[in-house]
Amino acid sequence: MIRTLVIGFGQVAANFAVGLERVKSGEAEPYGVPLADQDFGVRIDEVEIVGAVDVDKRKVGRDLASVAEEFYGLRSPSGALRDVYVHRGLGGEWVRDLFPVENEDWSLSLSRVEELIQELKPDVILDVTTTQSAHAYEDIEEFEGAVARGDAAPGQVYAYLALKASRRIGPLAYVNLNPTPVAHSPAILKLAEQTGCIVLGDDGATGATPLTADLLEHLRERNRRVYSIAQFNIGGNTDFLSLTEEKRNRAKEETKSSVVRDILGYDAPHYIKPTGYLEPLGDKKFVAMHIWWESFNGAVDELIVNMRINDSPALAGLIVDLARIGWLLKKKGLRGTVYEVNAFYMKRPAPPGSRNISRFHAYELLTRFIKSL
Amino acid sequence: MIRTLVIGFGQVAANFAVGLERVKSGEAEPYGVPLADQDFGVRIDEVEIVGAVDVDKRKVGRDLASVAEEFYGLRSPSGALRDVYVHRGLGGEWVRDLFPVENEDWSLSLSRVEELIQELKPDVILDVTTTQSAHAYEDIEEFEGAVARGDAAPGQVYAYLALKASRRIGPLAYVNLNPTPVAHSPAILKLAEQTGCIVLGDDGATGATPLTADLLEHLRERNRRVYSIAQFNIGGNTDFLSLTEEKRNRAKEETKSSVVRDILGYDAPHYIKPTGYLEPLGDKKFVAMHIWWESFNGAVDELIVNMRINDSPALAGLIVDLARIGWLLKKKGLRGTVYEVNAFYMKRPAPPGSRNISRFHAYELLTRFIKSL
Amino acid sequence: MIRTLVIGFGQVAANFAVGLERVKSGEAEPYGVPLADQDFGVRIDEVEIVGAVDVDKRKVGRDLASVAEEFYGLRSPSGALRDVYVHRGLGGEWVRDLFPVENEDWSLSLSRVEELIQELKPDVILDVTTTQSAHAYEDIEEFEGAVARGDAAPGQVYAYLALKASRRIGPLAYVNLNPTPVAHSPAILKLAEQTGCIVLGDDGATGATPLTADLLEHLRERNRRVYSIAQFNIGGNTDFLSLTEEKRNRAKEETKSSVVRDILGYDAPHYIKPTGYLEPLGDKKFVAMHIWWESFNGAVDELIVNMRINDSPALAGLIVDLARIGWLLKKKGLRGTVYEVNAFYMKRPAPPGSRNISRFHAYELLTRFIKSL
Amino acid sequence: MIRTLVIGFGQVAANFAVGLERVKSGEAEPYGVPLADQDFGVRIDEVEIVGAVDVDKRKVGRDLASVAEEFYGLRSPSGALRDVYVHRGLGGEWVRDLFPVENEDWSLSLSRVEELIQELKPDVILDVTTTQSAHAYEDIEEFEGAVARGDAAPGQVYAYLALKASRRIGPLAYVNLNPTPVAHSPAILKLAEQTGCIVLGDDGATGATPLTADLLEHLRERNRRVYSIAQFNIGGNTDFLSLTEEKRNRAKEETKSSVVRDILGYDAPHYIKPTGYLEPLGDKKFVAMHIWWESFNGAVDELIVNMRINDSPALAGLIVDLARIGWLLKKKGLRGTVYEVNAFYMKRPAPPGSRNISRFHAYELLTRFIKSL
Repeated sequence: MIRTLVIGFGQVAANFAVGLERVKSGEAEPYGVPLADQDFGVRIDEVEIVGAVDVDKRKVGRDLASVAEEFYGLRSPSGALRDVYVHRGLGGEWVRDLFPVENEDWSLSLSRVEELIQELKPDVILDVTTTQSAHAYEDIEEFEGAVARGDAAPGQVYAYLALKASRRIGPLAYVNLNPTPVAHSPAILKLAEQTGCIVLGDDGATGATPLTADLLEHLRERNRRVYSIAQFNIGGNTDFLSLTEEKRNRAKEETKSSVVRDILGYDAPHYIKPTGYLEPLGDKKFVAMHIWWESFNGAVDELIVNMRINDSPALAGLIVDLARIGWLLKKKGLRGTVYEVNAFYMKRPAPPGSRNISRFHAYELLTRFIKSL
Repeated sequence: MIRTLVIGFGQVAANFAVGLERVKSGEAEPYGVPLADQDFGVRIDEVEIVGAVDVDKRKVGRDLASVAEEFYGLRSPSGALRDVYVHRGLGGEWVRDLFPVENEDWSLSLSRVEELIQELKPDVILDVTTTQSAHAYEDIEEFEGAVARGDAAPGQVYAYLALKASRRIGPLAYVNLNPTPVAHSPAILKLAEQTGCIVLGDDGATGATPLTADLLEHLRERNRRVYSIAQFNIGGNTDFLSLTEEKRNRAKEETKSSVVRDILGYDAPHYIKPTGYLEPLGDKKFVAMHIWWESFNGAVDELIVNMRINDSPALAGLIVDLARIGWLLKKKGLRGTVYEVNAFYMKRPAPPGSRNISRFHAYELLTRFIKSL
Repeated sequence: MIRTLVIGFGQVAANFAVGLERVKSGEAEPYGVPLADQDFGVRIDEVEIVGAVDVDKRKVGRDLASVAEEFYGLRSPSGALRDVYVHRGLGGEWVRDLFPVENEDWSLSLSRVEELIQELKPDVILDVTTTQSAHAYEDIEEFEGAVARGDAAPGQVYAYLALKASRRIGPLAYVNLNPTPVAHSPAILKLAEQTGCIVLGDDGATGATPLTADLLEHLRERNRRVYSIAQFNIGGNTDFLSLTEEKRNRAKEETKSSVVRDILGYDAPHYIKPTGYLEPLGDKKFVAMHIWWESFNGAVDELIVNMRINDSPALAGLIVDLARIGWLLKKKGLRGTVYEVNAFYMKRPAPPGSRNISRFHAYELLTRFIKSL
Repeated sequence: MIRTLVIGFGQVAANFAVGLERVKSGEAEPYGVPLADQDFGVRIDEVEIVGAVDVDKRKVGRDLASVAEEFYGLRSPSGALRDVYVHRGLGGEWVRDLFPVENEDWSLSLSRVEELIQELKPDVILDVTTTQSAHAYEDIEEFEGAVARGDAAPGQVYAYLALKASRRIGPLAYVNLNPTPVAHSPAILKLAEQTGCIVLGDDGATGATPLTADLLEHLRERNRRVYSIAQFNIGGNTDFLSLTEEKRNRAKEETKSSVVRDILGYDAPHYIKPTGYLEPLGDKKFVAMHIWWESFNGAVDELIVNMRINDSPALAGLIVDLARIGWLLKKKGLRGTVYEVNAFYMKRPAPPGSRNISRFHAYELLTRFIKSL
C-alpha cells in the first residue's frame, strides 16, 4: 500500500481521489495514466489517500467524498473516501482573493502541519495547490529563516515540513505539481539529500504545453524554420481565476516559454501564456495555437490547433503515476530529485538548469529509467 | 557528385530541382530537408540532376528550368537547369485522363527507357510519378512477364528497367515516393538483392499523415483512449485531381489508415483519406483533423487540427535527403531495402509486413542507423 | 391544439417529441426554436403529437417514449408519450440497407396509410424520413401512376396520401424536411392548390449550410472576392450512414451547393458535401470549412470554421416552429407553398426555381410575413 | 473630384493610397470596398488624396509613394503619389513609445495644422491614427480649453481644427476610424452642427468584431442560448504593438464587448480583446474564436473560428467607401453624425448611446439610406 497525502483539495485532487476509487471499484479504466500498464511492483489499486490538506474554510474538517461531490460534482463509488478528511493547512493569506480562509498564528500553523504529517505517515505527498509567485532559495539557513518568518511560499513550507518530519517517520517523496520553485530551490534539494527524501517538480505538464513541445519536435526533425508560435488558453476553473492576478501569471508564463528555445534550438518569436478567465468553460479549457514555418524551396506552411481539454483530470492521471513512481524511488533508496522523471511529468523539470526536451524523448528516457530500476 | 534521375517531372520534381539549385546558389536555406545538417560524407550541393523522365507531351524534350517556370511558376537561379532535359517516359495510358500523352509500341518504350538509364548512369533514381493502382508481385518470372506484356504499373516497370540496367552501369538506388507497390513487391526486392541495388519506398511521408502518427503517439504515451479520428484533405494539384479517380484513391487510403492500429495498438474508428479536388487551392492543400479521447476519470477531450501545407516542396525536401542516403547506402554496399530509412520517409515502409511507427521513433531509428554506417 | 403526425420516427422525430414534452413540463427552455417568442395565436405547449409512422420493424407498434429512450437515450417526462404509437409506414425497400423492414403488398400499404391519416386527423404532417434519391413530378396523372405502381419515393407518396385524405378530413399542412423533391414536384403543389392544403419544403436547413450562407453573405456585403470554399461534414447517425450510398449523397450535394452562386452572385469554386460516416461521432457531427478571399489592395485573407453540431435537435427545434406555422397558414386559408417560410427553414426552398438567399434576409422575410398574417 | 486628407500615414493609409491608385490604374479590382458597385454620383477614381499628416520623424516631408514602399513594401503604379506629401502633425508625445517624434510648442502645432487644412481644402478628412485612450467631451467650452492646453487626444484636436477651418473653407466630413471618442464627444458633434460639417465614427469595423456580430445574430435568430464567447487576436503591426500598453487596450476592449449584449439581448459571458503582439505575423493577424450554446432539447453545440486577416487593407477598403459617403453627405447638406452610416462601418457607432446591431441589419440600413439620398 502507498500512503499518499494531498496538499490542496481542489479540482485536481478531487479528480485524483474520485478517479482512483472508480478505477479500484472497476467503474472506470485507468485512461490518462501514462504508465498504467507498467509493472512497478505495486498496483494502482494499492495507492491509498490517507488525507488532504486545504485552507478553504468551507472544506476543512469534511470528508473527501462530500467535498468532491459538492464542489465539483464528482461522485465517489459508494463508501469510498467517506472516512478520509480535509485537514487544515497553512498560508491562507496567499489565496484569500480566491476563497474564504481563516487567520492563524504562523508558528502555530507550522507546528500543526508538521504534526499532521507525522501522524499520517505518508509515503508520497502530492502538492496540487494553486500557482504561487515565489523565488527559489539557494541557502538552507536563509530558507529556514524565510519559513520561520512566513516569507516562503506555502508549497515551499509544506516541502520543508515534510522533509523535517521525515527525520522521524522515515524518507518520503514530495511531488510539487505547481510552478512554485520547490524542486528548483537548491536549499530544498539539499535538505532532501540530507534526509534521504525525494523531491520531484515543478509544474505538472498537462494541457497545451506538452503537445506544443511535441509539435515543435516534429517540426525540428524536418528542419522546418518556425516563424512564430501563438498559443492561447482560457478556462473557468480556480487555476485560471488565480492567473488573472498578474504576478501569478508571470510565474506560469516562464515555465511555458522555455520549451521553444530548448526544443527548436533557436528562440522563435512566441506568445505562450494563460490568456484569460471565462467562468462557463469550467475545467474544460479552450486552447488555440498558431504555428507557421518555412519548408523547402521557400514554401510557407501553417498549422492551427484548437483543443478543449479537461485540465484537472489530465493532471490527476499523471499524479496516479507519480504516486507509484515516488514510492518506487523511495523504495530504491534514491534521494534528491530525478531528472528522468521530471522531464516527462513536469513543465519545468528539476534540477535547476535542466533543459526541456520533447515529450517523446522524455517518455523514452522515463520508461528506460523505470526499467533500469 | 551524386547523379540523380527523376521519374515524373511534375510539381514535386520541379520543386526538388529548383529548390536544390537555389540552395546551391545560396538563394535559399535547406529548410525542410530533415538531415540537412547531418554529415554524410557528401554535401547537398553535390547532388546533381542528370535528367528527368515524363510522358506529358508538353514537357518532353524541354529543359527543366523552362518547364518548372512555365508549369509551376518556379524560377531557377540564372543558368541552372538549362541543359538538363525531360526525356520521354513510358506508360502514358495510365495518366491520359490527366494530361496529353503519346502512344507508342510497348517494347519500343521498354528498350528506349532502358537505354536512357544506361546513358545517364544515375546513382539514384527518384520516382515521383502520380499514384497508380497496382498489386505487388511475389514472383520474379511472373513480374517479368507482366513487364513484358505492359501489365505492371509504370513505377514497377521503371524499377525493373533500372535494376536491369544496373548490371551494366553498376549498382544504383531506386526510391519510390508514390503508393504503387514497388518496395512492397517481393519480386523487385529479390531483383535488387541479386543486382546489389537498393530499393526504398513506398509513398513519401509528407502532409498530414506523419503529423497524425505523432499526435497518436503523443496520445498513446499518455494512455488516452481515442474514440475516433477524422482527417480530411483537399487540394488543387495533379495529385488530388488524380485521386478523384476511385481506384487511385483507394490505393492512397490504405497507406494512410494503417497508421492508426500500428501506433495506438487498437483500431480506433477512423476516416482518413484524400477527400477532394479544389483547383484554386493549388499545391497548398487544406487539412482538417478531429480527434477525441477519454482521459482520466472519464473526462472527454477534443483536438482539432487545421493546416495549409505545400505538398510538393515538403516531399521535395525529403527527396534531397533520400538522394544523399541512397548514395550512401550504395557506397556502403547495402542491397535490398532498408527499413530504418523507409520508416521515417515513407507512409508505407518496406519491406512488406513492416509496422508503421511514430515519426519520432522513426527519426531516432534513422539517425542512429545513419551514424552506425 | 395542433395535431401533428410525424413520418419517420428516427433521431429527429425523437428529439422533437421528447424535447417538446420537456418544454411543456418546464424541464427545458425552447432554445433552438427560432420563433419561440413569437405570438402565433397558439402556444408551443398546444402542439400535440398524435402519432408517428415508421418502417423499422423494431419500432412499429411501440409507444414513442420507449422508442426514444431505447434507441436514442432520450428520456421523456414521466407519463408523456406513453400512449402515442409508431404506426407502420410504407416503402421499406428504400431503406432496407439501413434497418430491418417487412415486405407488404403495395396497394395494401397505400390504403393502410391513407386510412391511418384519416383516423389521426392531423393538422400538420412532418416528414423527417431519411434522404431519398428521386425526381420531381410535373404532371398529376403521371405522378398518380407512379404512386400506384410504387415508383415514387416514399416522401412523395406520403404527401400524395395526405392530400388525398384531406378531401375527407379537411385541409392540412405537409412539411417535407428531407431532400426528396416533394415541394419541388409541381404535381404535388397543384394537388395542394386543388385540395386547399399547404406543402412546405424541401430539406430542413440545419447544420453547416445555413451558416455557410450567412458567412457568404457577410463576405458579399464587403465585396470580398471568394477564391474557394471547402466544407466537410462527418457524423455517425443514420443520416450519414445513408449518405454513404452514392445516389443519396448526390441528392444532398445538390441542395447544398446552390447556395454559393445564389448568394455570392458568381460560382466560386467549392466542395460542399457530406463527407463520411464515423460511428462514434453519433448525432454530433464534425464540420470543417475553409474559405479564402481577396480583400482590398490584393490582400488575401483566410477563414477556417470548425463545429460540433447536434444535427437532430437542431432540426427538431425548427420543426416546433413549422408545426405552428403550418397550423397558422392552414388557419389563414393559404394553399400551395409559401416561399417566405421555406426560404428560412429549407435548404432548397420551394416553389421550384426559387433562389437561395442568406438566412439573414430569409429571417427578415419570414418575420415580416408572419406579422403580416 | 473628392479631396481627401489622411491623418496618420501608417499601414492603413498606405494601403488606402496605394490600393486606390492601383484601382484607378486598372491594376487591381476594388475588392474589399463594400459599396464599390453602388452609384453615388461620384466614381471611385474621383477620390484623390491631397495630403497626409503624421508625427513620425522618418516620414514627415516625404512623398507617399516612397513611404508606402519603404515602410510597408507597397508599390504604387508608376508616377502615382509622387507629388503628395506627408505633412507634420501634432501630439507626437502620445506615440513616442512607438516611433521617433519631434517636440514642438503646442500652440505652434495648433496653428500649423489649422493652416495646413485651410491650404489643402479637403472635402473629407480620414483619421487613421493609432488608438488613443481619452474621454469624451460634453461641453464645447471645456473641450476648447482642453484643446488649447494640449489635454485632448490628437484625434479630438484634429477634429476640432478641421471644424474650425471649415468656417473658412466650407463644410467637410471628418471620419474617425480609431476608438478615440471623437464622434462620441457631444462637444464635437455640436460643433459639427454649428459648422454644417459631418463627423463619422468611431473605430472602423474590420477584423473579427463584425464577423462576431453576424455570428451572434445568426445564433440569436435561431434562439440558441450562448454559454460563452472567447475571442483572441494577435498581430505584428503597430496597432497591436500600441495595444500592449494597458490603457490603450482597455479603450479597444470596450468597443469590442458591447456587441454581445446589444445583439444577443443578454450579456453572455465573454472574453473579447486584443491579446498580444507577435512581430512576424505583421499586418496579417491571427484570430481564434470559441462560441458554444444550447440548442433544442438540451443539446450543446460548439463553434470554433480561426482567421488570418490583413487588418490594414480591410480598413483601407472601408475608407474608400467612407470618402465617397462623406462627400455625398456633405453635398446633400447633412450635418452632425449619421447613425445609418456609422452602424455599418464603425465598431462603436455614433451618436453616443447608439446600439450595436448586426452587420447584416446595418448593411440593409446603410444601403436603404444611401438610396434614399
